[in-house]
Amino acid sequence: MKTLLKFNEEEYKESAKAIRSARKIAEEAADKVCEEGFSNIFFTAVGGSLSPMMAITEFAKELTSLPIYVEQAAELLTCGNQRLNKNSVVITLSKSGDTKESVAIANYCKEQGIRVICCTGNENSPLAKASTYQVPMKHKNGVEYEYMLLYWLFFRILHNKGEFENYEAFADGLSKLPENLMKVKEQFDPKAEKIAKEHFDAPIQYWIAGNEMWGEAYLFSMCILEEMQWIKTKSVTSAEFFHGTLELIEPGISVFMIKGEGKGRVLDERAQKFLEAHTDKLVVIDTAEYALDDMSKEFRWIVAPLVCSTCLVDRLAAHLESYTGHNLDYRRYYRQFEY
Amino acid sequence: MKTLLKFNEEEYKESAKAIRSARKIAEEAADKVCEEGFSNIFFTAVGGSLSPMMAITEFAKELTSLPIYVEQAAELLTCGNQRLNKNSVVITLSKSGDTKESVAIANYCKEQGIRVICCTGNENSPLAKASTYQVPMKHKNGVEYEYMLLYWLFFRILHNKGEFENYEAFADGLSKLPENLMKVKEQFDPKAEKIAKEHFDAPIQYWIAGNEMWGEAYLFSMCILEEMQWIKTKSVTSAEFFHGTLELIEPGISVFMIKGEGKGRVLDERAQKFLEAHTDKLVVIDTAEYALDDMSKEFRWIVAPLVCSTCLVDRLAAHLESYTGHNLDYRRYYRQFEY
Repeated sequence: MKTLLKFNEEEYKESAKAIRSARKIAEEAADKVCEEGFSNIFFTAVGGSLSPMMAITEFAKELTSLPIYVEQAAELLTCGNQRLNKNSVVITLSKSGDTKESVAIANYCKEQGIRVICCTGNENSPLAKASTYQVPMKHKNGVEYEYMLLYWLFFRILHNKGEFENYEAFADGLSKLPENLMKVKEQFDPKAEKIAKEHFDAPIQYWIAGNEMWGEAYLFSMCILEEMQWIKTKSVTSAEFFHGTLELIEPGISVFMIKGEGKGRVLDERAQKFLEAHTDKLVVIDTAEYALDDMSKEFRWIVAPLVCSTCLVDRLAAHLESYTGHNLDYRRYYRQFEY
Repeated sequence: MKTLLKFNEEEYKESAKAIRSARKIAEEAADKVCEEGFSNIFFTAVGGSLSPMMAITEFAKELTSLPIYVEQAAELLTCGNQRLNKNSVVITLSKSGDTKESVAIANYCKEQGIRVICCTGNENSPLAKASTYQVPMKHKNGVEYEYMLLYWLFFRILHNKGEFENYEAFADGLSKLPENLMKVKEQFDPKAEKIAKEHFDAPIQYWIAGNEMWGEAYLFSMCILEEMQWIKTKSVTSAEFFHGTLELIEPGISVFMIKGEGKGRVLDERAQKFLEAHTDKLVVIDTAEYALDDMSKEFRWIVAPLVCSTCLVDRLAAHLESYTGHNLDYRRYYRQFEY
């Protein structure tokens, strides 16, 4: 593999090992809550960690009759939710294990006798201590690894409920995904460089995606471009784009269209067709362009968000940084003081 | 009442009468589906019509254990949803009754034997014909009237389920709301003029709101500012604002904070405190400033989105138009051709 800008191959491979070793633990937690029984599942987090959870709630719509909710942790904590009760399972995720809102939710659940499964990198963290089940999340880099843990958890639950037949093949494919993603990174890298060069100084970037890909548009525009690059963005879904945002599109406007590989792809294509006719600054991010060995065609729409994440959060962010000269790690406000 | 810019008082009063006369019909539809029984409710629409539905799903979280879903109609149609079945009730809304996606969903439901309640202004429309129950929506102007119909429907259902005790007082208060809203319009009008003057040419407007008010920020920024004024916007929730968008705030940046009157208000206040310290261009829209006769304090958080809608979609939009000189009715793309 050739050397990629700001990418540590050794660390990425080590992370893959650490995450793979947590698969069994994730599956055991899934089996436990299925044995005990539950009436609904709440996924809860804040900011970027919501992104894989948003994808999961979209899969849930198509794959299961179970009520699956995703809730912003601060809102859930502040406003409550009548459907959250002793028969619920709460799934949360925080690498540091000290994200204020997630810890508070876990503590609230503990007091109420509600089961919490947490994915965290620190088994002595406040989040880990407040949780019923812990899934170790020991990767050094790659948000795609957060997806993997949540997928092993969630799709194992569906499998146990008889709603996801080929789980083993899917879960094995996930284990082998890091090698595929390395190839994707390499293939996408020159494209990332070209996109960064052309769009780094755009006055605003429009990000469009639908259904299971929406979380990626939401995350990348807000948590990377706005937070880490101070680039102005607007994100909107492929279906809702036609109810307002379309009127702003004209030649010279930078638009990024993330296409999915599921049923909603036709909605993405409708937006793409419109965009191709109305701006000369359209970038299409299409995970269907990348081969994924050992991943059956039937699962591609499910892993598409991870593939996209690797392209954007890893590759595109690195190249944008090199053009804007704005350090991805610099914040003027976020976590710099109390608010 | 003094004359307000682009406001037809007579028409507004006539609309109030037309909507009030539909209350009983909305309640009867609610009673019918409760008698028949149901396992969940799907609210579905596109664009601005999603806004009151988004508010309702937020109330639902706090008030009922019933599964209540809101779905973008094009997505629901394209991707399906396993929880949508013969025991579901679908509630949709389209003034013209010919919104493509809503009609298609209603027809799909009819084929599947799923009950549909529609609110529509045209009883001979394709939507009306595909629906099980129709609630006439005969107003000439005022999106707040769409809220009123949906509230009579939804809160009557909760009342029937024993989850909303003081329904009659609330429903009567709603009937009397148009007179209150006229006073609100008058009170907000000079503020709208001042806001429009100061912000009409801002390079981008940030709109922030949380929980039950989120739909208003979503609607106003996308369906009014983007679609009807070609003004660049970004909308984000009060809780999520802190996970990215905050880094873009600095003196000179126009930010609009919509505050709610429910439990989530503390999240709005946290954002407001931050914003007051970091931009000199902050506008706070706070419905708590307006008296509402015959509306008990316990219901104010529920009617706050309507009050906000009257201020923004009616008053602020009119004043923005007079400063930008951009006709609110002009579209270059929307519904101008097939896409």
